[in-house]
Amino acid sequence: MDSSLLSEIESFFESAPPLKDRAGIADKLKEFIELNSPPSGSSRRRIVCVTSGGTTVPLEQRCVRYIDNFSSGHRGAASTEYFIKAGYAVIFLYRRGTYQPYCRSLPDNAFLECFEVTDESTVQVSEPHSEAVKSAIRDHHAAVAGGVLLKLPFTTIFECLQMLQMIAVSIRIIGPNAMFYLAAAVSDFYVPWRSMAEHKIQSGSGPLDMRLVQVPKMLSVLRKEWAPMAFCISFKLETDSKILLKKADMALKKYEMHAVVANELSTRKEEVVVVTNNGNIPVYRDKTQAGSDVENPLIKLLVDRHSAYIKDSGT
Amino acid sequence: MDSSLLSEIESFFESAPPLKDRAGIADKLKEFIELNSPPSGSSRRRIVCVTSGGTTVPLEQRCVRYIDNFSSGHRGAASTEYFIKAGYAVIFLYRRGTYQPYCRSLPDNAFLECFEVTDESTVQVSEPHSEAVKSAIRDHHAAVAGGVLLKLPFTTIFECLQMLQMIAVSIRIIGPNAMFYLAAAVSDFYVPWRSMAEHKIQSGSGPLDMRLVQVPKMLSVLRKEWAPMAFCISFKLETDSKILLKKADMALKKYEMHAVVANELSTRKEEVVVVTNNGNIPVYRDKTQAGSDVENPLIKLLVDRHSAYIKDSGT
Repeated sequence: MDSSLLSEIESFFESAPPLKDRAGIADKLKEFIELNSPPSGSSRRRIVCVTSGGTTVPLEQRCVRYIDNFSSGHRGAASTEYFIKAGYAVIFLYRRGTYQPYCRSLPDNAFLECFEVTDESTVQVSEPHSEAVKSAIRDHHAAVAGGVLLKLPFTTIFECLQMLQMIAVSIRIIGPNAMFYLAAAVSDFYVPWRSMAEHKIQSGSGPLDMRLVQVPKMLSVLRKEWAPMAFCISFKLETDSKILLKKADMALKKYEMHAVVANELSTRKEEVVVVTNNGNIPVYRDKTQAGSDVENPLIKLLVDRHSAYIKDSGT
Repeated sequence: MDSSLLSEIESFFESAPPLKDRAGIADKLKEFIELNSPPSGSSRRRIVCVTSGGTTVPLEQRCVRYIDNFSSGHRGAASTEYFIKAGYAVIFLYRRGTYQPYCRSLPDNAFLECFEVTDESTVQVSEPHSEAVKSAIRDHHAAVAGGVLLKLPFTTIFECLQMLQMIAVSIRIIGPNAMFYLAAAVSDFYVPWRSMAEHKIQSGSGPLDMRLVQVPKMLSVLRKEWAPMAFCISFKLETDSKILLKKADMALKKYEMHAVVANELSTRKEEVVVVTNNGNIPVYRDKTQAGSDVENPLIKLLVDRHSAYIKDSGT
């Protein structure tokens, strides 16, 4: 691997503010992996790390302003549900405030919109939302209590990538049974912590010029160093469909992904293209089914591919 | 007023993407103002517009990336509750996803954390949160249904300032009974819509250099043109306490505010300083009371000042 990339990555992590509660997160990960893939047990689940939502890039050390990559987290939340349905245990590495698994069909501000207090002073679900609310709460609790869903929140790009590294290194022991489904919108640019303004940038002195440097590409190091046996899926989002497939294919080869899911901003809920070394596979939402989504067939396809990959690995 | 500022403001609004559902928002505002301050009625409420949360500045027209000004919206949500308690009607102009009035004491992800589904398949509140949940839902519904709370969400700086202008122009008819409590963290810099990249900015070609221009100061035009009789409170947040009071005082004079609330990022929940033309008034949270906040005494003080202002206006 390119030694300048390795030193860029090292300097990214060295310059990052320390991750809060690193030891607590490490404990949770260890426990989750042991529970779902006991070293001496025969009933091992596959484990997928789903990343979801956008990362922020702080522009000031005492952070008032930051650059945000927009992502609702809908894709990651939906995919998590289908992975669990397919028997996987999911480490859901998500941006705070984005969509949560099992809660996609709820309105914004669900807490205020879905409940009412009766005259007898008990809280009840408002009628139109009754079924959605019940299944959301029930299914979410079942997944967490059942030990197949571990949720880890992040806000900044530093937190997201620090935790991704921890997950990858911990999950390495399960070899090809591990999968990475990297749906989060990770920023391409950042301001190194040390060169960041300590205090709020002052206005009043003309335009603001900013220089952001590229985030080193972690995908290479994830594949080659952190978890070399894991099955890796990355995402490519563009607003310009003309360059989308070409860029997805470049990412596939450059980072040696097992598949890249190409999606265009305006049609991403209807279709995606799974770009692989054996060709491109378009995946469509089933338009004949009300309430269907593109994640259902997408996860089916990827689970099949993962099965074939595990078989090929001969374990 | 400075004609170059006026033309900057004009160009800001002209270059902004059109506000969605402008007519619907205008209708809601008209109805809310007539309900709370009927032209021929004697029981008129004062109306305060509380702005809350941070604005985003899009960096691309089909927005994937944007700059965000961090603000949880806690101050605006808390203040709204105290204004309603003091008899005001509140137009709550808030950033989507930030704190809502009456919901401050709930945990993150309240929807998933506070409820459980029983064996009989009914949803019930988990015990530790029971009282907080009940009062949140009850008080929030009472305020909205009682017609004293109108909630208008925004995301971008364009939406925020377009709606602020609409509110100011509609509320002008109630003269000094109107108040602006501008707690939102509005960005100082933006990228004019026309000079913005149409598509997602591409990485892979070195560092990203960006030039942001200053957002024209709307406070002047709010005071002088949009709603010249309204009682106006703005906020100044700094991370550096050494420059805070000086900057608050400059804002007071430059924009002819009736008061500027100065707060420092690290102590903003404990104390603020109300900067006025008659001197600075520190306001502290009552530390002898559990669960107290600085907004309670702050709103008491501002309501008194507003009463004096209305009296002085001779209406």
